[in-house]
Amino acid sequence: MRIRGAPLIAIVAVLGLSVDLTSNESTISHLTDGNTDTKTFIYDKMTYLKTSRPTAVNLFNAMEELKDIVEKSSNDDVVTAIVTHAQFMLKRDVSDNKAIGSHGADDLLSRHTHPDGVRLVTICNTGSLATAGWGTALGVARELQVRSKLRSIAALETRPYNQGSRLTAYEIYTEQMNGTLICDSMAAFYLKRKGADACVVGADRVCANGDTANKIGTYNLSIIAKEMGVEFFVASPFTTLDVNLKSGDEIEIEERPAKEMIDSGSAPKNMSCWNPAFDVTPAEYITGIITEKGVLKKGPDGKFDVIGFVKKHSS
Amino acid sequence: MRIRGAPLIAIVAVLGLSVDLTSNESTISHLTDGNTDTKTFIYDKMTYLKTSRPTAVNLFNAMEELKDIVEKSSNDDVVTAIVTHAQFMLKRDVSDNKAIGSHGADDLLSRHTHPDGVRLVTICNTGSLATAGWGTALGVARELQVRSKLRSIAALETRPYNQGSRLTAYEIYTEQMNGTLICDSMAAFYLKRKGADACVVGADRVCANGDTANKIGTYNLSIIAKEMGVEFFVASPFTTLDVNLKSGDEIEIEERPAKEMIDSGSAPKNMSCWNPAFDVTPAEYITGIITEKGVLKKGPDGKFDVIGFVKKHSS
Repeated sequence: MRIRGAPLIAIVAVLGLSVDLTSNESTISHLTDGNTDTKTFIYDKMTYLKTSRPTAVNLFNAMEELKDIVEKSSNDDVVTAIVTHAQFMLKRDVSDNKAIGSHGADDLLSRHTHPDGVRLVTICNTGSLATAGWGTALGVARELQVRSKLRSIAALETRPYNQGSRLTAYEIYTEQMNGTLICDSMAAFYLKRKGADACVVGADRVCANGDTANKIGTYNLSIIAKEMGVEFFVASPFTTLDVNLKSGDEIEIEERPAKEMIDSGSAPKNMSCWNPAFDVTPAEYITGIITEKGVLKKGPDGKFDVIGFVKKHSS
Repeated sequence: MRIRGAPLIAIVAVLGLSVDLTSNESTISHLTDGNTDTKTFIYDKMTYLKTSRPTAVNLFNAMEELKDIVEKSSNDDVVTAIVTHAQFMLKRDVSDNKAIGSHGADDLLSRHTHPDGVRLVTICNTGSLATAGWGTALGVARELQVRSKLRSIAALETRPYNQGSRLTAYEIYTEQMNGTLICDSMAAFYLKRKGADACVVGADRVCANGDTANKIGTYNLSIIAKEMGVEFFVASPFTTLDVNLKSGDEIEIEERPAKEMIDSGSAPKNMSCWNPAFDVTPAEYITGIITEKGVLKKGPDGKFDVIGFVKKHSS
């Protein structure tokens, strides 16, 4: 949990592998003596990394992409190829994020025409601290801010790890957005008393039917948004779309130790806790999915055609 | 916030006044010398107490009840009358709580007939630490536990003050209930994955139309319960019913300092926060209101007749 945010986990995994390979060439030589070659050594590392965090698809996809690069390289140039790719990933993440922000802002402003702009609610941290530097859901807020069209933004605290209060609030504060920190439990009352036009959240995995795994609390927020007639958008890189999973039922949810909740909430030491790190928001609660390739909306049948969207935009 | 729980606030106010009056008789003599009498001194204290916490009606009602007692007493016997009344309030609170638990358990068990009993979700602390000794919403859980019919109970952490993790979890743990602590943000995912038959929450004030003020997060939970088809009960003393307020729009909501959220969530020191201590759950999300005089359900028109219920049961 020291490195968090689905896009950043993937980038850090590849960066870490790069550092590992360039600083441990002697280790590789040693390991490969007579037994295995550099590429096999790398494949083993990648297999380990792929399974280290189960819920986000980005890490899995990053390893698949890297596999292609390793396969096309020789034992002699594979390390250089990985380092070059890590640098490329960093740049691509920022430019993809900026495209997400731009598509999201365009879409929101097409309906929400108050002269001061759009009122947002977000959960967890999806900003420059969860990506290589701009943000996905928070990137939409940043783009609106750049256009002077961010009327307000409320950040949910995001228990039990407080990514909202520790990270998003920090970004909102330093970016001088008109932002407010609220507890997760205040979402409904906030929407009622203060109002918002849209919730924008990140994603760890979007399934073929649009069901979305994201930070725990997203499902709560989506139900409340629907009940209050507030739009609910998922903003995430195109690679977060996982057409291999039919629905959210197939997403593995990482459960974390009770200790995280006990320590931060002053609960009895041996209290039984349930601490899923993520939840699954059913597609029915989602208004649209914002990616760097455009905004996916529901069809006339009321369903997301994620497979069609991925096919159309895959190069 | 050192004394919390709507019923307990009222009791402690009267107990505190008793202590104040018995230990400061010289002060009263001094104050009353030529200027004012004991009863006037007491009325002043009561006026102050009445306005010290705005949201819960119990404190207000306790002061109204006390006013009658003071009015009927002379300057000589008023202190004794107040002390006697404080002792009576303590006993009455426990017996009322036990009646709430009993009515609530009867009602729930009439529909939820699993051999292991009922699965509950609750928020904040409404147990022996919020009352004189048994509990309102948590009193229902205790009664089910006594009958070996509490299949499970989930306690919401209840940010930002963590009454759920600090107090309710403690009561669940020491009472050896089959309980689980979850974050406020996990309610929807908990209902989906683990299931529950009913949410039972306390109340600070119930209006004539059934709108209910309670700890912040109750409104969130009620929307989620409705969406997931889970019953949602308010359990509170009969005196919490306030027929003088037509609807929740008329309830004053106490807002508390940002510091409470900033410190406990590690947010930037000057971050703007919104920290309402309570919210209002509209009657449409409430299945029934459990009091010591019985369970109020909606009529054929889908509405609560709180005024009729109060008239019928007022002695």
